Amino acid sequence: MDGIDVLVSEVGPRDGLQSIAPTLPLAAKKAWIDAAVAAGIREIEVGSFVPAHILPQLADTADVVAHARTHPALHVAVLVPNAKGAEAALAAGAHKITLPLSASETHSLKNLRRTHAQVFDEVARIVDLIRALPADRRPTFEGAVSTAFGCTLEGEVPESTVVALAEKLMALGCDEVGLSDTTGYANPAQVKRLVRAVHAAIGADHMTGLHLHNTRGLGLANVLAGLDVGITTFDASLGGLGGCPFAPGASGNIVTEDLVFMLEAMGLRTGIDLNRLIACRAILSAALPGESLYGFTPDAGLPLGFRAAA
Amino acid sequence: MDGIDVLVSEVGPRDGLQSIAPTLPLAAKKAWIDAAVAAGIREIEVGSFVPAHILPQLADTADVVAHARTHPALHVAVLVPNAKGAEAALAAGAHKITLPLSASETHSLKNLRRTHAQVFDEVARIVDLIRALPADRRPTFEGAVSTAFGCTLEGEVPESTVVALAEKLMALGCDEVGLSDTTGYANPAQVKRLVRAVHAAIGADHMTGLHLHNTRGLGLANVLAGLDVGITTFDASLGGLGGCPFAPGASGNIVTEDLVFMLEAMGLRTGIDLNRLIACRAILSAALPGESLYGFTPDAGLPLGFRAAA
Repeated sequence: MDGIDVLVSEVGPRDGLQSIAPTLPLAAKKAWIDAAVAAGIREIEVGSFVPAHILPQLADTADVVAHARTHPALHVAVLVPNAKGAEAALAAGAHKITLPLSASETHSLKNLRRTHAQVFDEVARIVDLIRALPADRRPTFEGAVSTAFGCTLEGEVPESTVVALAEKLMALGCDEVGLSDTTGYANPAQVKRLVRAVHAAIGADHMTGLHLHNTRGLGLANVLAGLDVGITTFDASLGGLGGCPFAPGASGNIVTEDLVFMLEAMGLRTGIDLNRLIACRAILSAALPGESLYGFTPDAGLPLGFRAAA
Repeated sequence: MDGIDVLVSEVGPRDGLQSIAPTLPLAAKKAWIDAAVAAGIREIEVGSFVPAHILPQLADTADVVAHARTHPALHVAVLVPNAKGAEAALAAGAHKITLPLSASETHSLKNLRRTHAQVFDEVARIVDLIRALPADRRPTFEGAVSTAFGCTLEGEVPESTVVALAEKLMALGCDEVGLSDTTGYANPAQVKRLVRAVHAAIGADHMTGLHLHNTRGLGLANVLAGLDVGITTFDASLGGLGGCPFAPGASGNIVTEDLVFMLEAMGLRTGIDLNRLIACRAILSAALPGESLYGFTPDAGLPLGFRAAA
């Protein structure tokens, strides 16, 4: 796999910050984005357009998007729960809009308070909103199938359910589909099976990204499995922010620093300078003194003589 | 890979206990071995025959071997640094004797105070000792190439060095060769390359085991890479005993519980009951109150509806 380009999508400003109680000040969010871009990060999920009373930590997402857009090469992504959020995302000028759809309908009802049919209606509305824009202002629209590898409420999620949802999302007009291991249930064999099944159904070009958690320690093994079946985009969170691997219920995003170390050590190009990436942690440490940062590689240090992928 | 049998070799009683300051009392060592066997563990590295002034924590290894041998189906392994240790191991009746040889000669001199040539002499002496025994009392003799994936003193270790050492160990009369990522430098691409190279040189049947650390978080990803190239034995330590992933210089063995979870979730048979394995931790918690135990799976719990491999 030498020399393959892999896109590491930093989701800490959304998934990390929504999982902690304190709000990172806007200035620190901007500083984080600037430092991440300087380290070579090419895509950042900078926030979520949800009502401020639900996630006050992300209430300034429009301002964060505006700042992120000042970096010309950065792909600025946001999460939206519905068409109303998508309207705000389009107004702000996000380059990518992701709408989560839980494969487990029980989880969907509990988390988004919507049935699958109701989420499909939102997807259709968002597609209409996007298509009403001039072609050069249309963002990429991703339907993200969450709890795709299992659900804490329903247990096993049939692969046929995930495949059918991916097909439906594409039929409704999404540009691409992502799979999320929301619960940290995924294992490498399952990752390969499910990715292959979804690729067979909607085409490999329409499912290139995985959002994996490290809840049971298998995050990077699952990345490796994804690489083996053609996945080229992986979400990760700087310092594993917001996800304590040693606390039940933790979100547990895979740690960006460990992911980049593995990829670069394997000879896969991320375009990211690992030392500069690790230096970004200081921004979070300073602005969020009560939060723990994780990561084996930052703590152990880089191997003697370590060379990034050429 | 469904249904393949994988041997999880528990090395905590040796590698874990040698890395912590307190000595686990003999009674607790026996209780740990009994509980591990009851959980389905089939091989345990129960100690090391080193001088008591160097590793007082393992001074009772002969007694531990004697107890472990009361479990008829258990494969009882020990580490020895030299022929003198091997004599003690043979007298105790160990089923498997492992002698470490550091691929980095700098590391070998610093750690074992021996050049490669001096270690080869010890290997030859051990082979003579074993061959002097009746055929039915001869243990398996493994030469373990440590720092095989890189060295904290020398940095990169050439693959050709590791291959040449593996060939030499086999030529001297070892039954098998193991590779150890002593420093936690390994990455999955390197694991595949090096295993394939060693297999090509000495035959896949003579190199079936990997000793991997999780120092930089890649332990289970490296296991997955090993599985892909035919490795069927993996060392691991219950609770990651003795290796703090968040402390520099940590030994950082991969955690047995997380390894077994990954393998069983993938449909690979370990023969180990994960709940009973996790219950073994209580023995260590009670007898070593000051030591931290690690493991994502024990902390997060098993997925809802989790089924072991059939």
